[in-house]
Amino acid sequence: MGTGQELYKKAKTLIPGGTMLLSKRPEMFLPEHWPAYFSKAKACTVWDLDGNEFLDMTIMGIGTNLLGYGNDSVDKAVRSTINNGNMSTFNCPEEVALAEKLVELHPWGDMVRFARSGGEANAIAIRIARAASGRDKVAICGYHGWHDWYLSANLAEDDGLDGHLLPGLDPAGVPRNLAGSVIPFNYNNLEELTKIVKNNPDVGVVKMEVSRNMGPAEGYLEGVRALCDEHNLVLIFDECTSGFRETFGGLHKKYGVEPDMCMFGKAMGNGYGITAVFGKRSVMEATQKTFISSTFWTERIGPTAALATLEEMERQKSWEVVTETGKKIAASWKELAATHGLKVNVAGLPALISYGMPYDNWLSYKTYITQEMLKKGILGSNNVYVCTEHKKEHLDRYFNELDPIYATIKACEDGTKNIADLLEGPVCHGGFKRLN
Amino acid sequence: MGTGQELYKKAKTLIPGGTMLLSKRPEMFLPEHWPAYFSKAKACTVWDLDGNEFLDMTIMGIGTNLLGYGNDSVDKAVRSTINNGNMSTFNCPEEVALAEKLVELHPWGDMVRFARSGGEANAIAIRIARAASGRDKVAICGYHGWHDWYLSANLAEDDGLDGHLLPGLDPAGVPRNLAGSVIPFNYNNLEELTKIVKNNPDVGVVKMEVSRNMGPAEGYLEGVRALCDEHNLVLIFDECTSGFRETFGGLHKKYGVEPDMCMFGKAMGNGYGITAVFGKRSVMEATQKTFISSTFWTERIGPTAALATLEEMERQKSWEVVTETGKKIAASWKELAATHGLKVNVAGLPALISYGMPYDNWLSYKTYITQEMLKKGILGSNNVYVCTEHKKEHLDRYFNELDPIYATIKACEDGTKNIADLLEGPVCHGGFKRLN
Repeated sequence: MGTGQELYKKAKTLIPGGTMLLSKRPEMFLPEHWPAYFSKAKACTVWDLDGNEFLDMTIMGIGTNLLGYGNDSVDKAVRSTINNGNMSTFNCPEEVALAEKLVELHPWGDMVRFARSGGEANAIAIRIARAASGRDKVAICGYHGWHDWYLSANLAEDDGLDGHLLPGLDPAGVPRNLAGSVIPFNYNNLEELTKIVKNNPDVGVVKMEVSRNMGPAEGYLEGVRALCDEHNLVLIFDECTSGFRETFGGLHKKYGVEPDMCMFGKAMGNGYGITAVFGKRSVMEATQKTFISSTFWTERIGPTAALATLEEMERQKSWEVVTETGKKIAASWKELAATHGLKVNVAGLPALISYGMPYDNWLSYKTYITQEMLKKGILGSNNVYVCTEHKKEHLDRYFNELDPIYATIKACEDGTKNIADLLEGPVCHGGFKRLN
Repeated sequence: MGTGQELYKKAKTLIPGGTMLLSKRPEMFLPEHWPAYFSKAKACTVWDLDGNEFLDMTIMGIGTNLLGYGNDSVDKAVRSTINNGNMSTFNCPEEVALAEKLVELHPWGDMVRFARSGGEANAIAIRIARAASGRDKVAICGYHGWHDWYLSANLAEDDGLDGHLLPGLDPAGVPRNLAGSVIPFNYNNLEELTKIVKNNPDVGVVKMEVSRNMGPAEGYLEGVRALCDEHNLVLIFDECTSGFRETFGGLHKKYGVEPDMCMFGKAMGNGYGITAVFGKRSVMEATQKTFISSTFWTERIGPTAALATLEEMERQKSWEVVTETGKKIAASWKELAATHGLKVNVAGLPALISYGMPYDNWLSYKTYITQEMLKKGILGSNNVYVCTEHKKEHLDRYFNELDPIYATIKACEDGTKNIADLLEGPVCHGGFKRLN
């Protein structure tokens, strides 16, 4: 057992759930064998606590590092912030410059509030939108964080969020009075949302992801926009994950449909914590009717990193680069699967590409992929959060190693091999599970 | 008008409320004249955008920089994190080391979850405590952030939080269904809290600050602890502000009363964003019955900075240093006021010392103090968040400049001068106000 797994065993006695982020739990990748902790990360390479080097062809910090780990320009800006001070009794001018830049990129909006995490940005947006609309109920589609307002969707019926967040999640600790305050709707089903809005005049806000596993059907986003206009609803696009992956800004720019508010996060600071709640003045000014304030939202590193990240993105046209790379990966998965006679379902934005195989043993196969890739020095699962440092040589190496793994999976499907015999540890988790 | 005020005028068109933190609004200090933004901060000195240098005898980043701005040891550790990567697909080992350190400092507790802001830490603690107790209602005393769960106290009666947060706050955007879920109680009034608990069997959690403007009356904290034990309530001390100011850890260590959970923040990372929810295993394990997860809680800078900060605090015995300095400041305020025949009420922990004068024109006098201090190159209001870099020479300089200001205030009280004639701009805000 490596140093990382030893440390993780200790972590589980000190940190409930072992980590601060479900998606970074070792059990989500390779229980008992995932290296778990890093000493160093640079470009698309990560080193574990034993000095082993891995090519990261998985989540790249769960999508934070679109320009790769340790981008020189961004890190240079952050170092200068540390030299000059990250915090003071005065405010940092960078937050104003970043606000201006976001308005420049999204001329439909006027104002912005910054925070540190995506959950916060989601909760801030809901507070502002509820204050602006004067109505409490929210219709939601997609994943929007961990806060009470969102998890309350699982109070009314315990499978309310099954298609959005994680199957079977128990919303323990969410006040039961919130039951019914959030109504989930399905993506690409305008009729359903229209019914919800008509039957619930106290809905004031619609919050959704612009794209889910698939993109919007023709006219869907336009229909949602028209519905919100008709019923005077605040339309929020959650761009925490999708932002800066396919356009220089929100994914909604691709579809030409403008929300009243949107949130940015993840990629915006290239690995440094910064999120934004962005919107029209008419909505954002409602912030002043309520209290939204926190000490660490005034840190200078966040806006400094974001300004440098946006500059570097613009220089590299990074959204085009990662989309192009993601499309190549998608095509290669399909090609390799076809070569081996395997079925594969590829989904997601090109820059957040993932796949599944419609087999009963899929979770075991996924675990096996990760297990074998790790032996070859690659972090590889069933998704790639693409960064600009993912070059042809990395893709070639990844697919070269994936080839015999697919052959083995095919043999398992054909019954000439048994996947259970090939796994050296437990099967990876498919979602939320209590850890012991 | 300085560059900072020009920028702030623009900021108010781009950021609702102008800043991310109410306490850093220029209007809270000196409307139209506060320098508002910083270019550099070091030790207890801040430079504005025009290169003017100021001795910070006010809030020191609202209490984040107990070791002063840009502490060399802390910054060195953070620079090394930037060199090695702030984020990756793996977790950072520093979070485990920090968890261990907090347990070492507070042997009554076992487990911890980290976050980035104090509001988050408060919301996480409430979620866990509600999940652990199985009951939704919370009794609260003090300031605990901006989230729905807390502001809901102002839904039932709009002055519910008057003595705790900010007078007259409108909780717009907080779901009305939460009305009645949080019950405020007054500090040092055990009888009141006992009644609340007895009349509300659905109260499962008591959250409070350990000390308010005054310290606990004899037996008060012990009484709260016994009440919580008797009724099986989760007792939470909010140490976001008080932690590390008077002991090496929570302020509760001074009083020998142990909660079931507590939160740390502000000073713990010496200006870098990191907060912690700490508690007994029996309570903290309830985290696993719910979903609490966020991408930027996995940043490496936070725990790295906190580890270096705690090491440096231990080396300097910083809690003793800032307490000693704060006591000197308190004594000097009283002495100077007495010299001038002025009344002064000093309150708060020595390291977070503040005062008021019981005069009708107090807010004007406070504004005048700030205005005159600024001319002398000092950020000075009616409070000092003490750091270890505040030395005798800084206190001497501060009180030397305060002397003639107090003389003028006395003259105003005597009617020989008129404070309105002396102010060069509007009076500072005393709390939450809508900005135009």
